[in-house]
Amino acid sequence: MASVHEFKLNLHSGPGALHEWVKLQNGATPETKLLFSIVDLHALTVPQEAAQLRKWRKEAFATLLAVGLDPKRSTIFYQSDVPTHAELMWILSTVASMGYLSRMTQWKSKLQLPEDATLEDSEARAQLRLGLFSYPVLQAADILVHRATHVPVGEDQRQHLEFSRYTANSFNHLYGDIFPIPEALISPAKRVMSLKEPTSKMSKSHADERSRIILTDSPEQIHKKVKVALTDSEPTITYDPARRPGVSNLIELLSHVEGGTCEEIAKEYQSASLRALKEHVADRIANHLSGIRERYTEIMDDRTGLLDSVAQQGAETAQANARRTMTKVRKAMGL
Amino acid sequence: MASVHEFKLNLHSGPGALHEWVKLQNGATPETKLLFSIVDLHALTVPQEAAQLRKWRKEAFATLLAVGLDPKRSTIFYQSDVPTHAELMWILSTVASMGYLSRMTQWKSKLQLPEDATLEDSEARAQLRLGLFSYPVLQAADILVHRATHVPVGEDQRQHLEFSRYTANSFNHLYGDIFPIPEALISPAKRVMSLKEPTSKMSKSHADERSRIILTDSPEQIHKKVKVALTDSEPTITYDPARRPGVSNLIELLSHVEGGTCEEIAKEYQSASLRALKEHVADRIANHLSGIRERYTEIMDDRTGLLDSVAQQGAETAQANARRTMTKVRKAMGL
Repeated sequence: MASVHEFKLNLHSGPGALHEWVKLQNGATPETKLLFSIVDLHALTVPQEAAQLRKWRKEAFATLLAVGLDPKRSTIFYQSDVPTHAELMWILSTVASMGYLSRMTQWKSKLQLPEDATLEDSEARAQLRLGLFSYPVLQAADILVHRATHVPVGEDQRQHLEFSRYTANSFNHLYGDIFPIPEALISPAKRVMSLKEPTSKMSKSHADERSRIILTDSPEQIHKKVKVALTDSEPTITYDPARRPGVSNLIELLSHVEGGTCEEIAKEYQSASLRALKEHVADRIANHLSGIRERYTEIMDDRTGLLDSVAQQGAETAQANARRTMTKVRKAMGL
Repeated sequence: MASVHEFKLNLHSGPGALHEWVKLQNGATPETKLLFSIVDLHALTVPQEAAQLRKWRKEAFATLLAVGLDPKRSTIFYQSDVPTHAELMWILSTVASMGYLSRMTQWKSKLQLPEDATLEDSEARAQLRLGLFSYPVLQAADILVHRATHVPVGEDQRQHLEFSRYTANSFNHLYGDIFPIPEALISPAKRVMSLKEPTSKMSKSHADERSRIILTDSPEQIHKKVKVALTDSEPTITYDPARRPGVSNLIELLSHVEGGTCEEIAKEYQSASLRALKEHVADRIANHLSGIRERYTEIMDDRTGLLDSVAQQGAETAQANARRTMTKVRKAMGL
């Protein structure tokens, strides 16, 4: 069976993942099918402002192309352009256990409820919408509709992959062997931590803009942000993520853009000043991003409909792929 | 705004409704759009055998045509052929309140739980699947995706229409005036009660086949079933549904097929024997059904793909109609 690898870009995806995806694309065997989905339907599980969502979708697509995903090699599409995701979601709903879903933690954490909250808690009853609660089933549909064999999972996504596997097994048990059971794609996904809170991941959704570097940042902006990155006041440079998260994050960033292990880099800069290290990190990041930034600006400024046409092509390929699965599903169920 | 009337044929629809639908079709103003959907996706909320479901779908479609729905006038389609129903369901899920859904009664009655059961009851947790629980949202999507203004509602469907209205209002409140708020289509829908338990509706899903008359019944079978219909042993014929449900049901059946009020019929047969009344009822039903039965058999035996082509045409019209709504929805949400 051919491998199908599926990746999802969501509202909170940070820069570390993208970098890794491009490497995975470029290193994948020719038989491996690669799918990249911008999960705009998932974004709707929490209230969104229409103009903001529209902007994010476009920027997300442009980013994927700018960092180096190749639409000739990879299928890149907006989730909402492939209606079969929602279609399969309904089908999977008919086997998905409410008990299992109610024990999952994401809806609780999004509503800032304790982990042992139940559906009968008055706070949960007042706030919870079906979309947020049933979202793991849409995630399962995203994966299963493309018969994905491998999906990358961060620690916070492990529970959702487990649910997808369980749902695939439940369905196969009732209707025959339709879905491959998806596995976690273990990749040495590089963590990129917040510049302001180096114990949390760098995220597009953090309130403080100085906590992250984005593709459109100019070299000056990058220098400014790195300069005020939270570190500590110890006199030497060492790599010690647990005790010195800020300095270690700078070293990790340097390791991402110029290669080399963190330990090697720490040794090299051992007696440099923190200021000199920051200067160097900012330079290297600015340099690393300059090509990406240029492509990104070009794509965003394009007036020839480039992005729309790539998105349409991606949607058509993904939809055709999804329909093949749905045809099998319908047949098995008697539809 | 043009009227859009939408009707749903489900696994349990009895013959009374169909009869009424044809009358509504034939009496509708030319501007009124008419949609008839065979809700096969709803059927999946309880376990189905694939072969049985396939058979039911075909029979249901053939029945709609045989009783007199005209595909040139009405859009007749399988729900599962129009993926936008499921697409809109996800969208509506993001506004649908879990608290409201958990208070609805259908999932409880289908699982034979008490009306005050909650999602935390161990029986509910063990048995309940998301599909059964979230099914009112799919029902709302069925209606709203076609911008239906009127839907027929039996007493048991009133709660679902209320939920659809609430969901449409919630969505409109957040995203602008997209959905008409659907209203109940009040029709003097004739009740057809079970021949064996005349206090319950005649239903395709009742265990005792003698409790119902179906389109394929021969005149002999009809006579047999009416002959053993449950009545009482009072000497005269009177119309009194509360006290004499069996006899009154026979009178109602006669009223459906030959017109006239039940009171008039009761008066006419006042001093006839029960046996004579039954004879007459069976004759009239057999006569009434003979044309329908003939058309039904013709459609079921057809080998030229008639049914498939009518279904495809219906699906295309319904899908185009649904996509128009979905385009508005997507724009309003920023997708």
